[in-house]
This record gives sequence, C-alpha cells and structure tokens, in this order.
Amino acid sequence: MLNNYSTEDKVLLAVDCIIFGFDEESLKILLIKRDFEPEKGKWSLIGGFLKKEETLDIAAIRILNHLTGFQDIYMEQLYTFSKVDRDPVERTISTAYYALINIAEHDKELIQKYSAKWFDIAEAPKLIFDHDEMLDKATKRLRYRASTKPIGFELLPQKFTMRQLQKLYEAILAEKLDKRNFINKINSFDILIKLDEKDMKSSRKGSFLYKFDQEKYEEKVSEGFNFKV
Amino acid sequence: MLNNYSTEDKVLLAVDCIIFGFDEESLKILLIKRDFEPEKGKWSLIGGFLKKEETLDIAAIRILNHLTGFQDIYMEQLYTFSKVDRDPVERTISTAYYALINIAEHDKELIQKYSAKWFDIAEAPKLIFDHDEMLDKATKRLRYRASTKPIGFELLPQKFTMRQLQKLYEAILAEKLDKRNFINKINSFDILIKLDEKDMKSSRKGSFLYKFDQEKYEEKVSEGFNFKV
Repeated sequence: MLNNYSTEDKVLLAVDCIIFGFDEESLKILLIKRDFEPEKGKWSLIGGFLKKEETLDIAAIRILNHLTGFQDIYMEQLYTFSKVDRDPVERTISTAYYALINIAEHDKELIQKYSAKWFDIAEAPKLIFDHDEMLDKATKRLRYRASTKPIGFELLPQKFTMRQLQKLYEAILAEKLDKRNFINKINSFDILIKLDEKDMKSSRKGSFLYKFDQEKYEEKVSEGFNFKV
Repeated sequence: MLNNYSTEDKVLLAVDCIIFGFDEESLKILLIKRDFEPEKGKWSLIGGFLKKEETLDIAAIRILNHLTGFQDIYMEQLYTFSKVDRDPVERTISTAYYALINIAEHDKELIQKYSAKWFDIAEAPKLIFDHDEMLDKATKRLRYRASTKPIGFELLPQKFTMRQLQKLYEAILAEKLDKRNFINKINSFDILIKLDEKDMKSSRKGSFLYKFDQEKYEEKVSEGFNFKV
C-alpha cells in the first residue's frame, strides 16, 4: 500500500442509475431532463452525489427514489467511470448501477416533478457527459446476462405466451429471432411449465400459456446456460 | 441529477489490485506486507491512492508497477467497495482490479524491496480492512470467467498436456475434476489441436501434447460456453 496522498487528490463520487424498462413490447431507458448548468435542458441518467455517511448501494437507492419515486428496486453495480474531464465542472468519479424493471408494475410510483421519461432504447437522445458510454456498457451487460442466465421472471406476467417471452429476448438482444429456433432453445433449458389454458387474444386458435418453473429457473440462474450456441 | 453536495462529501479513492498467479500447479495470490500504521506488518492487497490526473485504469497500472515492478499486465475492473468505515483512518472508497498471470513469465520482474510475496490461495493469511472480501469476490469472478469462456492461453506453455490443462481448471475451480469428464468436456468445445509430439517426462508411455487453436479459442471467448453443464 502506498500511503502518501494529498487532500487535493480527494474527489467527488457520483452515482448514476441506468434503469431499463420492459413494457411487453420493447426495451426502454429512463432518463431525466437536467435542470441546472452545465448541460441544462439536456437528457441525463438518474444521478447524484454520494454522501459521507452512505455506501454506494445506499446512495443509488436514495438518488433513484428521490428523483423518480421508485422503491424496492434491486440495482446491481456495473462499473466505475473515471475519465479525468468527464465532468467539466469538477473532478468527479461515477459509479454506475443498473436494473431492469417491469414498467407497468412501477408506473404508479413514477413521479413527474423531475420530468423523468421512458425512451425507447433505439430512440434515446444523446446524453450528457459520458452517460452514453455508461448506457452502452449497461446494455452489453444486460445482453450478456440474458444470454447466460434465464431472464423474465420479474418482467412478464405470471402466465405468458411463447410469443411474449420471445419479444422480451428480442427486445434485450436487439435482434429478431427465428420462432422455431427460439422455442427449441428455450425448451432445451427446461424452465417452463406449459399450462392447459390459452390466451385467446393473440389469434383465433389462441396461444398456449406458460409459466416459469421457479425451482428449475433458479437452478439455471445459478448454473448458467448459453443461449447463443 | 441532484446538484447539491458539500466539499465534505469528497472522498479519497484507492485502487487495490488482486493479482492471481498460476505456476502450473496451483493458484496463488500476490500480497504485500504493510509497512505503516494502521495494521502495520499485516498482509494486504497491492494498493494505493488515485491521483487527481489519473483514471482508475492508469492508477492501477502505476500502483502495481511501483510496488512489484510488473509491467504490461492487463487488469480488469472488478468492483468498487464503499463500506463507510472500511478504512479506520479516513473515508476511503476503493476500486478493485484483478488479473491472472503466469508466475514464471513475470517472476524476473518482481522486485523484492516491498516484500510482495505469492501465497497459495488456500493458505493466504488474513488480510487488512475488507481485502478478504475483495479477494473472495475476485475469486468468484475468476471461477465464473473460467466456467463461461476458455482460459489458459496466457497461463500455459505453448504446448501442454491434457493433465496440465486439467490442473489449471482444478486450481481455479478449487475442486478435483474427473479425468474422463474433463477430457470430454474440453474436447466438446473444439478449441484444442492435438500434436504428434509427446511429453515424455510425465510417464513411461508419455502424454500427447496439445496447443490451442487460436481462432476457435477466440471465437469461444466471444461466444461463451458453459463448462459446468
């Protein structure tokens, strides 16, 4: 350990939250309009500064709650960004957190006073500072996560159609998937229970409903799998 | 973005490096004896403070080089640790980096003036502050890495026996693997080229030598696989 440092080396630590949302159709990102200089009026991730008495985890929860009203959202630490001039005002290091939530389930919590708004990932505006880089890294992590472990338990209704599950994967991976390949792949993981019920809205013949086999799902979360190969 | 902060919220940022080593036999960790208070004389990860003009990546490289002499070691950012009282002297947040290197290849670089020393993972002493937690997280990340992507290219000699490769996996995963299962598993990934040469030191009949098929190896690094299932 090198023990020499000067007080000048102290820095501000920020926390930025990358909140992905799924609305059963597409992948969205929650952004907030910045209401102070610099970059006033531009779009930003949900962020703020770490306080002396907080851990980063606690700061992330406080900041997210304060700016959006969201509660009980499990965020995972993503990466710490440290380019020297990333904030033009003052040296600030930022630790990014990310989460993927079901938009419908948290929609009532979202308070509008800070003008936080969901954007379709493909149509998100340019962000301040290095926030585009953060978003990019989080998107990659999310895709990697979805290709190595099951995803969907907290994002789909309890009973869902194969098409809804495919939509979720397509939204996260940002690519169209072949229907038959997708079904074979998902079935090979053995995490679904096919129900006797059908969803009759989707077509005249209806589509079978599925639910996750929670035990097998959790087994695969800890074991991992490979969605791509 | 919340823009209110006080100068008191500024913190020291440290970088701690978790350097794993492989010597064709076991997995080791590089530790250094701390030569100042608090916790003088105890074992610590290789660490130091971020300077104002550095990114975290650059600081990690400088600190590692200064305390060990190591050069050109690619470290990956692991996680940022922020428990409020993790350093008893002053609020310090630490970003941990990790790397896995071939000990023999870097042994000449290692300078002894700071008493950095390799320890077998299983026999490592208790570390200062939250460094045991850091080491634990890095070990888990390394295991996960080894179970989802090929590993070994930089850690084994260019030509190696199946037994040497199995030793590497056993060292990282910290478990004995069944020889036949291991061979089948590795062969199923199709990343090895079996050579006509034999290593005659290992047994009377000798053991065939292998090398990695670099193209297929790199393909699997980006695609990923699942070693466990």
